[in-house]
Amino acid sequence: MGRYDKNREFLKANFEILDDIKTDAQKKLPKAPLQKEYDENAKLIDLPKPSKDILVKSNVLECIEDRRSVRKYSEESISLEELSFLLWSTQGVQKLIGNDTASLRTVPSGGASHTFETYLIVNNVQGLTKGIYRYIPIGHKLLFMYEINEMTSKIDEATPRQPFAPNFASKSAVLFVWSTIPYRAEWKFDITAHKKILIDVGHVCQNLYIASEAIKCGTCAIGIYDQKLIDNMLGLDGEDEFVIYLAAVGKV
Amino acid sequence: MGRYDKNREFLKANFEILDDIKTDAQKKLPKAPLQKEYDENAKLIDLPKPSKDILVKSNVLECIEDRRSVRKYSEESISLEELSFLLWSTQGVQKLIGNDTASLRTVPSGGASHTFETYLIVNNVQGLTKGIYRYIPIGHKLLFMYEINEMTSKIDEATPRQPFAPNFASKSAVLFVWSTIPYRAEWKFDITAHKKILIDVGHVCQNLYIASEAIKCGTCAIGIYDQKLIDNMLGLDGEDEFVIYLAAVGKV
Repeated sequence: MGRYDKNREFLKANFEILDDIKTDAQKKLPKAPLQKEYDENAKLIDLPKPSKDILVKSNVLECIEDRRSVRKYSEESISLEELSFLLWSTQGVQKLIGNDTASLRTVPSGGASHTFETYLIVNNVQGLTKGIYRYIPIGHKLLFMYEINEMTSKIDEATPRQPFAPNFASKSAVLFVWSTIPYRAEWKFDITAHKKILIDVGHVCQNLYIASEAIKCGTCAIGIYDQKLIDNMLGLDGEDEFVIYLAAVGKV
Repeated sequence: MGRYDKNREFLKANFEILDDIKTDAQKKLPKAPLQKEYDENAKLIDLPKPSKDILVKSNVLECIEDRRSVRKYSEESISLEELSFLLWSTQGVQKLIGNDTASLRTVPSGGASHTFETYLIVNNVQGLTKGIYRYIPIGHKLLFMYEINEMTSKIDEATPRQPFAPNFASKSAVLFVWSTIPYRAEWKFDITAHKKILIDVGHVCQNLYIASEAIKCGTCAIGIYDQKLIDNMLGLDGEDEFVIYLAAVGKV
């Protein structure tokens, strides 16, 4: 067996497995909540409705054409309207379905399982204290979680091995950090869920690229990161929820 | 150990592995070609340059907002200009780099490894014979591979288990079938390559969704497929190259 064989198998379709097992959905076990819980008394920040007015480059072909991975940002801040547009483009909920147990969003997700939570490490967004936030897609709001000490060096440690531009993530205006709660998809797809989860986060990030291009921001996805450091930074258990992908965004 | 643990590990970052091994890139082994070879004498079909003139919905926010997974198509054909726009949006090469050993494209790919080939099962595209084609990204051309007998039933067999709309793939105007040649990324990232490959194909497919929306087409990604049947249909060996994701496209 070749060195890569096992991993290559993971990239393939394997749905015949489902013929031989009963999924948790088929067992009528409870579905995972479509959005992570939060303290009901927490003060949420309303996000403005995404508006065409903020688009600097509105033509979709131009946005696709001009998109690059951008690792150098100006010191200009991002407005709350712009951040709102980026969050909505990547995870915005458009409709609740299935008695409010699932959602249709601006990005597709097989089985509408949408396993992601979006955390933001905010460095330079107008009107927002620096620190860690969580996007609340139902209702399109932001939850302030906490400030972090020595944010720059902590981000640098969590995003090592960037040969082209060391430490660019900590110089961004906002760092998108997507976690996955895999059980949201395992419930229905069992061990065939995981390939899908990775593809889904690619859908999400591509919309971030396109939307960023439309508002004169640059984005660079970050697949190389320190799993434990970043999970710890966000207070995730690393088992039932853990970070899966990141992207830095800043004005160009 | 839980039933899902092993697969969940696959979703995590594991780049510390690279400290202990020498990748094929570090061993100076030859890189995989960035585009699969084809018969030099084959007649290629020139694709028109993507043009804003064909956009029906040009505003990027509207394209993001209105995108849905569409499994029902009209009988209207897709024009070659439209197909060209979809291919360019998903895999178009914008620049060759590294002495022409790598490419920058309309979609991002970590390490610019772009492991995908795009095959089309063409059913209803103006000016194209029904059958299987391969996109040649360098130069933006199409290679006609062959006709297939009983195309509809073969597509139906290869795309089973679609509860919402059985056999919708075979009713589309064109079926995008992406294969991966994983060594293009393994060369540099070794066994950390495979997570990245799946995320990358998500980037690709999201651009197909957005671009389709702009030209009044509907798209639906297909992650559930019969690996062997579809690999055989395209003449892929299933080891060094195999299908990773599909998407049906048709006029709405």
